[in-house]
Formats: sequence, structure tokens, C-alpha cells
Amino acid sequence: MIIDIHGHYTTEPQALHMFRDRQLAGLADAARKPASTDLGISDEVLVKSVEPQLKFQKDRGSDLTIFSPRASGMAHHVGSEPVSRQWTTICNDLIHRICRLLPENFVAAGQLPQFPGVSPANCIPELERIVNELGFVGVNLNPDPTGGYWTDPPLTDRYWYPIYEKLCELEVPAMIHVSSSCNPNFHATGAHYINADTTAFMQLIQGNLFKDFPTLTFVIPHGGGAVPFHWGRYRGMSLDMKKPPLAEHVMKNVFFDTCVYHLPGIELLVKVIPADNILFASEMIGAVKGIDPETGHYFDDTKRYIDQVSALTEEHRHKIYEGNARRVYPRLDALLTRRGHPAAAVA
Amino acid sequence: MIIDIHGHYTTEPQALHMFRDRQLAGLADAARKPASTDLGISDEVLVKSVEPQLKFQKDRGSDLTIFSPRASGMAHHVGSEPVSRQWTTICNDLIHRICRLLPENFVAAGQLPQFPGVSPANCIPELERIVNELGFVGVNLNPDPTGGYWTDPPLTDRYWYPIYEKLCELEVPAMIHVSSSCNPNFHATGAHYINADTTAFMQLIQGNLFKDFPTLTFVIPHGGGAVPFHWGRYRGMSLDMKKPPLAEHVMKNVFFDTCVYHLPGIELLVKVIPADNILFASEMIGAVKGIDPETGHYFDDTKRYIDQVSALTEEHRHKIYEGNARRVYPRLDALLTRRGHPAAAVA
Repeated sequence: MIIDIHGHYTTEPQALHMFRDRQLAGLADAARKPASTDLGISDEVLVKSVEPQLKFQKDRGSDLTIFSPRASGMAHHVGSEPVSRQWTTICNDLIHRICRLLPENFVAAGQLPQFPGVSPANCIPELERIVNELGFVGVNLNPDPTGGYWTDPPLTDRYWYPIYEKLCELEVPAMIHVSSSCNPNFHATGAHYINADTTAFMQLIQGNLFKDFPTLTFVIPHGGGAVPFHWGRYRGMSLDMKKPPLAEHVMKNVFFDTCVYHLPGIELLVKVIPADNILFASEMIGAVKGIDPETGHYFDDTKRYIDQVSALTEEHRHKIYEGNARRVYPRLDALLTRRGHPAAAVA
Repeated sequence: MIIDIHGHYTTEPQALHMFRDRQLAGLADAARKPASTDLGISDEVLVKSVEPQLKFQKDRGSDLTIFSPRASGMAHHVGSEPVSRQWTTICNDLIHRICRLLPENFVAAGQLPQFPGVSPANCIPELERIVNELGFVGVNLNPDPTGGYWTDPPLTDRYWYPIYEKLCELEVPAMIHVSSSCNPNFHATGAHYINADTTAFMQLIQGNLFKDFPTLTFVIPHGGGAVPFHWGRYRGMSLDMKKPPLAEHVMKNVFFDTCVYHLPGIELLVKVIPADNILFASEMIGAVKGIDPETGHYFDDTKRYIDQVSALTEEHRHKIYEGNARRVYPRLDALLTRRGHPAAAVA
């Protein structure tokens, strides 16, 4: 079984975008506020909207995608906390419906109603709702709800502890994923995303978060940002800072996905990061949608790259494609086991 | 000849730090302002202070280092514009003295008196002074003088054009290098530096700067941040944005250094980035000072990694170690030619 742990709903029906326009217009002119949160999107339209993803799953040979709302759409910095809350509920509900309609193809991960300067404790009710009531297996946590100005505290600050406590209690991992950038210095997918991945990892080196939360699990997407390319730098800095070896200090709790869109990048990733810490992902229909003229294949068809790395054993591949995902997402493992998929051999 | 294009003066005499303390104390209490900008540092003390660098040059087999003030010391966000100006002059003067005392070992690059919200045109007098009067061959340009809040315009904004005009006129390349971070989210050398490299490259993809300045040359340090690891992402995004191929759009003007502190990182760098765009550098006595317990060698002894990459031809190596540096830093080439070093064979 091949599990793609990083998919966003980037093919939403127009009705969702129209709702968002009216919701935000309502901030300036209350008369424009949407009268209802019922978007009037039929099941048929929802299924139709994810046909591109289903086709890619089939063409590229993946089975199941952990599916969450569009990352850049979260836009926690926009509007107000109640706006973020309403928007989050609507986006999560759509994901839930898709995963209920196509349970063999999609499993749900959620967004949280974060807002700059507001304690992440405000996210607990929505987190409990999507996990306990809707069966979500993961969640995206935005390390910079300001959208590129980085004025909230680092991830290791006690500010974040309430949400970590709840994540541990629910056995839900968080993907550390920023949203769109309102800072003209940072292109969203070309700079802000990658910077956030790098920044989060360095914060974890500096702090001691997993001593306080030994079971907290973070997925750092986009192959860990710049981290594998600078793995010597991070090992060396960590030593200079008298931290324990990275394997012990952070790598029991931190996992990188494979959203790296060329073969040499994937080769480096699997060379320096242990196979136990790598989760297959493509973020398909995401940041890079085109075909690489050098290969004739889609840039984001990451399975092709992994399949080409001869240094990977079958055991490594099994971990990357399925085993690690079931270990990192215990609720996914339980779901698959209930559905009769044999338990993954876990190291 | 082996030229290390990225060295900072990180072993400054205590007198410099004491001056800085008094300078900044003077902002709060004018009575504490230093009476003079003469630090009273003798030539002997200066030479002594760079003995560690001289030893590493000898031990590791490099000849000449392009030497600039400590990057984190620039701290453009601290104090006021006059403070930044005074501090810059003093730091540049020390570099000048060291390069005059040890001309076979060091060639000078400068810092600029940038200040958040102040037009970079304010840097032109100091740039002219260090190049025309002191013989500096390069300069560090801080893309985020705020120290991690990124509220000044992107590098492609016309805001920066006056300094670009002067750099082109003087034939001086700029290394795009941030300084210390006052944002608790960003560890300086572990996140802010690498993020800035990635951010700058993406800004250059988005813009069209080199159409306006065909001879402007930027060095992006630390191996280009995350860029080589995500080379497929950048190629793909650039295609999606209907930009010309990167080779034409940015890579005639942008160069990456080799400050990547492990062999697999260097292997990736030289695999995806053309040898014509890579400049040897170690940033020794910089971000990572220790010895890698896995190899028994210093993390930042980058020459060892390059020498181990069997895919590099002798021609590639010559470009990386000398030829490209002489092409990117025309004033360095002129200096070496005047000193009787044979002109580098340039592609």
C-alpha cells in the first residue's frame, strides 16, 4: 500500500471561493456577509472536483492520500479570529465529506482556526471535533499565523503547549505548514514554505520540546526545507550547542516528507536522513504543476524518484511508502487495520 | 591558486567589542559615547588576531580569503543610521588594515551602512570609499536590514536600484548576506542565513532584475540556501511563471558558494548547479566551528568535500577554486594580474 501523506484540496469548487469572498467582504460591509454556511455543493460536485487527484493516484501508483484543506487557503492572518474559525470549520467539513465519499482514496487531516496573537488553545475545540467526531488522523499547524512577519513565539515556547497537550492526548501528529504570505519578500511556495520548514527544525534544535512532550510528533514537509542539504551544518551546530545527537534530540519525533521535485534532491534526502524518518508524499496539484522538460514527467511525481534510488532496500521502501505513515499517524493505522489491511511491519 | 571567497573577521580584538558597547551605550547615555574612533589596536595585535585563519589556510590548502567584517556583527537593525555608519566605517577600516598587512592572504570585502527603512542610496559614499580609496573587491549586501522582520522591500524593488547602479559602475559583486536576527523565531546562522539565501533567489526568479542590470553580480552564500536541494521546485515554478530558463533568467548573474558542511550536500550542489556558478568558500571560523565526529575533520573544511567529488573534472575544479572568483570579482582579478599571477583561464 502506498500512502501519500501530503495532499491539499487545491481543486475546490468555485462555490467555496465565492463564500470566502463574501465572508471577507462582510468585514467591510456587514450586508455582504454570507447568509448561511451551507455552500450548496452537492456530493457529485465534490467527487468531480477531485477527479484530477484520483487520476494521478492511478497513473502514478499511489493508493491513499492524507488530504487537508489548501495550505495557502488557511490564511490565518486574514480577517479576525471568528473569521478564521468559521472558515476553518467550512474547509474541514468539505474535507470530511470528500473522505466519506471516497474512503479508499482519501483520509482526512485538518486545518486549525489559528489567528496571530491568539493562544493556540483556541484551536482545541475544532481539533477535538475533527478528530473525535469526524475521524481526522492529522492536522496542519501553522508556525507563523502572521503570514510572513513571524511575530508570534517560536514553536518551542510554552505559548504552544496547550495544543501540544491535546495533540498528544489524541495521538495526532502535526504537519508544520505555513499558509500564504502577505510579506512581499516571501513568495509563498518558493520561499515562505521552505523557510518555515528550515526555521521550525532549527527551533527544535535550540529548544528541548520533546523532553516535555515525548510522544509529540511533527512532520516537516517539503523534504525538511533546507535541512537535509545542510545536514552537516545542523549536526555541527547542535554539537556546538552541546545538545544530544540529533537522532535522540529531535529525530525520534520529527519526520520529513518527500516533496522534493527532482531525483538528486531525493537521493540526498534518503542518503542523510534515516529511512525511519521519511514519509512518502507528493503534494500533487500543488506548488509545481508542470512537466519537467528534462524528463518528460511531472515534477511532483515523487514516487518516480524514490523508485529510481537503487540504494534503498525493499524494507526502506516499505517504511517510506507505508510503514512510517502508519506509525506516525496512529489513527490512520487503526483505520486501515479495521478495514482489514494487514498491519504494517514496523521496525 | 585557491581562493576562499567567504571569510568574515570573527576573531576581532576585544577593543572592537568594547568600542561597540560604548557606542550603543551612548544611545542611552551620551556621556558613555566613545571619545574617539581610534580603537588603539596595533598592527601586531591585528596580525595576531588572524593567526587562526592563517593556520587553517595552511592546513587546508587555500591561498587567499576574501575577508569581510563579521556578518552577524553588522547588525543593521541596531541603533540609528549614524550609528550604523560609524560602526561600518570602523569595521571596514580594520579589514583594510589586515589586508594591507597580509596582502598574500586576505583581500577585502566590505559591509555597508544600511539601516531599516533608509534608502540603500545612503551606502554609496562608503561603497565608493572602500572601493576607490581602500581597494575593496566586494561587498556584503543585507537583504533584510531589520534583522528578521523583513519589512523593507524585496531585492527586485526599485528601492535598491541606486546601490545596484553604483555596484555595476564600480564592477563590484554583492554577496547577499543577512546579519544577526532579533526575531526569536530565527536562529541567526541556523535559520535566518539560510532562509535569506532561499528568499533572495526566489525574489530574483519572480522579478526581472538582470534585465535592468545585465552586469550586476550576486553571490548567494551557504550553497544557495535551500535552492540546490529544491532545484526541481525552482525550475518548475519558474516554468509555471513563464519565465525564461533559469540559466538565462538568473544564472548569468547569480553564483553560489560552497559553504555546505558535509559531503552529500556538496555532491548535490555540484550535480545540479553548473560549475561556472560555483565559488569555493568555507566561511571558516564561522557558523560551525567543530570537528565532525563521523569524519574526524572540521565540518567547515569544505575543500575536503570538493576534492572527494570524483565527478568534477580538473577544469571544473579550477573554475570553482579560482577561475570563477576572478571572473565574478573583476577587481580581484586585476589585483592578482598586477601581482603577476597568470590570468585564470576563463570559459
